[in-house]
Amino acid sequence: MKNLKDKVAVVFAASGEIAGAVARSFSQQGAKVYVTARNLDAVNELAREIKAGGGWAEAAKVDAMVEAEISDFLEKVVADNQRLDIVFNGIGADYNEMGGRPATTEATFEQFMAPIQKICGSQFLTSRAAARYMIQTHSEGTILLLTAALSRSKLSNVAGITAASVAIEGLTRVMATEWGKNGIKVICICPGAIMETKRISGWIEAAARQYGMPLEQLIAQYKSLDILKTSLTLKQVGETAAFLASETGVAFNSHIVDVDCGKLNIL
Amino acid sequence: MKNLKDKVAVVFAASGEIAGAVARSFSQQGAKVYVTARNLDAVNELAREIKAGGGWAEAAKVDAMVEAEISDFLEKVVADNQRLDIVFNGIGADYNEMGGRPATTEATFEQFMAPIQKICGSQFLTSRAAARYMIQTHSEGTILLLTAALSRSKLSNVAGITAASVAIEGLTRVMATEWGKNGIKVICICPGAIMETKRISGWIEAAARQYGMPLEQLIAQYKSLDILKTSLTLKQVGETAAFLASETGVAFNSHIVDVDCGKLNIL
Amino acid sequence: MKNLKDKVAVVFAASGEIAGAVARSFSQQGAKVYVTARNLDAVNELAREIKAGGGWAEAAKVDAMVEAEISDFLEKVVADNQRLDIVFNGIGADYNEMGGRPATTEATFEQFMAPIQKICGSQFLTSRAAARYMIQTHSEGTILLLTAALSRSKLSNVAGITAASVAIEGLTRVMATEWGKNGIKVICICPGAIMETKRISGWIEAAARQYGMPLEQLIAQYKSLDILKTSLTLKQVGETAAFLASETGVAFNSHIVDVDCGKLNIL
Amino acid sequence: MKNLKDKVAVVFAASGEIAGAVARSFSQQGAKVYVTARNLDAVNELAREIKAGGGWAEAAKVDAMVEAEISDFLEKVVADNQRLDIVFNGIGADYNEMGGRPATTEATFEQFMAPIQKICGSQFLTSRAAARYMIQTHSEGTILLLTAALSRSKLSNVAGITAASVAIEGLTRVMATEWGKNGIKVICICPGAIMETKRISGWIEAAARQYGMPLEQLIAQYKSLDILKTSLTLKQVGETAAFLASETGVAFNSHIVDVDCGKLNIL
Repeated sequence: MKNLKDKVAVVFAASGEIAGAVARSFSQQGAKVYVTARNLDAVNELAREIKAGGGWAEAAKVDAMVEAEISDFLEKVVADNQRLDIVFNGIGADYNEMGGRPATTEATFEQFMAPIQKICGSQFLTSRAAARYMIQTHSEGTILLLTAALSRSKLSNVAGITAASVAIEGLTRVMATEWGKNGIKVICICPGAIMETKRISGWIEAAARQYGMPLEQLIAQYKSLDILKTSLTLKQVGETAAFLASETGVAFNSHIVDVDCGKLNIL
Repeated sequence: MKNLKDKVAVVFAASGEIAGAVARSFSQQGAKVYVTARNLDAVNELAREIKAGGGWAEAAKVDAMVEAEISDFLEKVVADNQRLDIVFNGIGADYNEMGGRPATTEATFEQFMAPIQKICGSQFLTSRAAARYMIQTHSEGTILLLTAALSRSKLSNVAGITAASVAIEGLTRVMATEWGKNGIKVICICPGAIMETKRISGWIEAAARQYGMPLEQLIAQYKSLDILKTSLTLKQVGETAAFLASETGVAFNSHIVDVDCGKLNIL
Repeated sequence: MKNLKDKVAVVFAASGEIAGAVARSFSQQGAKVYVTARNLDAVNELAREIKAGGGWAEAAKVDAMVEAEISDFLEKVVADNQRLDIVFNGIGADYNEMGGRPATTEATFEQFMAPIQKICGSQFLTSRAAARYMIQTHSEGTILLLTAALSRSKLSNVAGITAASVAIEGLTRVMATEWGKNGIKVICICPGAIMETKRISGWIEAAARQYGMPLEQLIAQYKSLDILKTSLTLKQVGETAAFLASETGVAFNSHIVDVDCGKLNIL
Repeated sequence: MKNLKDKVAVVFAASGEIAGAVARSFSQQGAKVYVTARNLDAVNELAREIKAGGGWAEAAKVDAMVEAEISDFLEKVVADNQRLDIVFNGIGADYNEMGGRPATTEATFEQFMAPIQKICGSQFLTSRAAARYMIQTHSEGTILLLTAALSRSKLSNVAGITAASVAIEGLTRVMATEWGKNGIKVICICPGAIMETKRISGWIEAAARQYGMPLEQLIAQYKSLDILKTSLTLKQVGETAAFLASETGVAFNSHIVDVDCGKLNIL
């Protein structure tokens, strides 16, 4: 039985690895999936792959930071389907793009605000637009946000991204509170570090170079906080997101869901 | 696709409403379900119902407070199946059975300790026995515990049950930490008040009588903390438990999972 | 014994009621207190009052949103004192100033970001500048931030202020982590609603008018979440801040401190 | 100014190092301090030391696990003083006394329940008796409980002590809720590991022997989670407790207070 049969899902910032995995899982559970990003080539490739696997997908160029593009796109989706069931925004912050990881004494105001404006701001824009169309079409849908586990940690030189991550969690709770009366669920997933992503494997390689440590040692150090012997995979994040958006996932709402297979340092 | 196909599940204290719903969901997802309780009639009836629905079930008289009964029963299950995939213990505390809800200034030491010994103690016994047999049979299974939402609230005259609830959550984290290396997941579900259960509907009726309030008003008051218009059902709790025990639920481990559709008073 | 004898304290956004109470407490504990705000008249009045009470105070016009003004002022303080022991920023967000409390479906991007930029941004600016001068002068000082209790609640139509509040808490943790090696403590206080402030009494009056409810009833409703019969006062918030900044407050660091006398809805 | 001038304080299980430090701080802040334990010699010595320092102290043999002894002693204190302002119970669990740190698969039911019955049970008994006498004498006092930081961690082989620690925190919240209407505050302190205590230094020495690691390396490992360069001292724990019990500590009530100078692994 497919959990998302006939559901209409839109994935923003779908060029990222997590969003790609989520889109694939939505499709595997039977949803029609619209995959969008600034990088049209990336989402075209993703859509092709989904269709090759027997799914329904359509790619579009949408900048998840630009309100008009988001709104126009959702309007078209709603015009075509008369409904909007699931929205996921996979926007992330790349340290390089954000000016590296400056010490907080050195970070400029703009460097500090950049991830908040980008990732928290984008989640605000896509969630708000999604809610408007879900309310308008009486779709009792699910809005899925994405945060990072550093919302619950104490790390150095990540002031902006940490502030953005917790801000997204606070935003999740307010939006769930407001839109629950319309039957809309709002959930935020918080994946642990996924070793197979380019971002995390890139960090580890960079850190290994920087500190002159063997790569295996650093990987072991990362994995030492994993409770299970196995580590979280992209596919598992996608499947969890698909479950949360399904009817059987209804018990989750306003939740910040740690998607991490258990971490020793995250309660 | 059934998520728990061929899995061997044991439900302790299965005469309760939550445990019954969990057992039914395990079965609907394809698991072989052993339902046990002190009250053999109740679990016989549950097993009959599951089998009538096309599932596999077997009932047995096991007191989830008695170590030897638990261990003997699991030994038999493992002898028959060479594996043990899922264990859920639905033990709960009934206020009446616990001496009512005395003010903490009035509660005796025995009244305070009773729910801790009963519900936290029983979760310890069944989880520990489950882990032993899962380790012995190399079953990388899931142990599901049950707590109550008052672990996260400030209510009067519930010292013992509150202490028991949080103790179960702490126990969950320690056990997950210890048994993760054996591939065993340990998760605790924390359902919100379920209006359709006899326990909650009984409380509300009793409170309505006590305070001379119309039943509808009290129900509305209870529901006023629900974010969604709909309220949590037993079936949803069962389905959530079945998901958590399935392979796609692997991202959850050591988690305390609020199963409540979103509550205004629970972060 | 005065806990802050000879300490040099700077209070930003000191025209607010909470910041005023904090400045008074710093002075009563023996600190030299610099009180600054955009509104010079307000802080002149506060300084006069502190001096009339036998304390040492100096007022200055500083906009806590403008990096250069903050930095120039702290440079002068450090030039005069060769140290900087305590910095508190009392910046708050007024709903009216922020465009009211629009539903999140209606809020513009600018309305959503405004409190984040203003209150979280200002805390970033004053904390970072404070840390630089504390490090430079080897002052093992305390940086106190301010957040609002809605960081831990689920309320409607407060997306921006909620996001700002949690962002400040995340920022606190990162800064404490970075500057601990320099002996600097970073703490965030989270006062509950203080009935005697103009902001809260104004809200309640406005709400009473809006819903046609007697004022007493609304006040009683607010107070129904207070565990103690008495409610939090401004003076208590000030005294708590003074304690946290003192040597005996050293056990608190990186903490988000609920300053609320106990609330039923805040764990 | 002494914060606890003329206050009547009773410390149970005062033979422990934390309780001793708390009793000394109560005295230094001007309180009359009754120090009690099963080990009369230990509390006689403590009382002598407090009196030598100019304080008021009286020692008595009271077993904090025996309801009648607790009650009889408080009755005498109230008969002598007509009031009871502060009660602290420093009861702790020694691993050896509790049967070591058995793996949870190996722990017996009795080993699991022992710390819950001992430390959570004792906190229940002394808090409840304290509340009765505070209510009877209209003393709007403070009841201070003690928990361990493992309530918020994921460690192996500490099921019972972890369960006991979180249970104490839940109990704190319920009691604060019930007794707030009588003006009684209930607070739980949660000190981080204190290197100077025999318990922690003993653990570290034992671990160094067990793993053949240099002592300095293990100490450095322990301290690596400290945010400040300095580590928490017993004196600081005592001073924090004295502050929380003072009038200026009123903002804290129903709180679990991490007394740790900031730890990287505790949010």
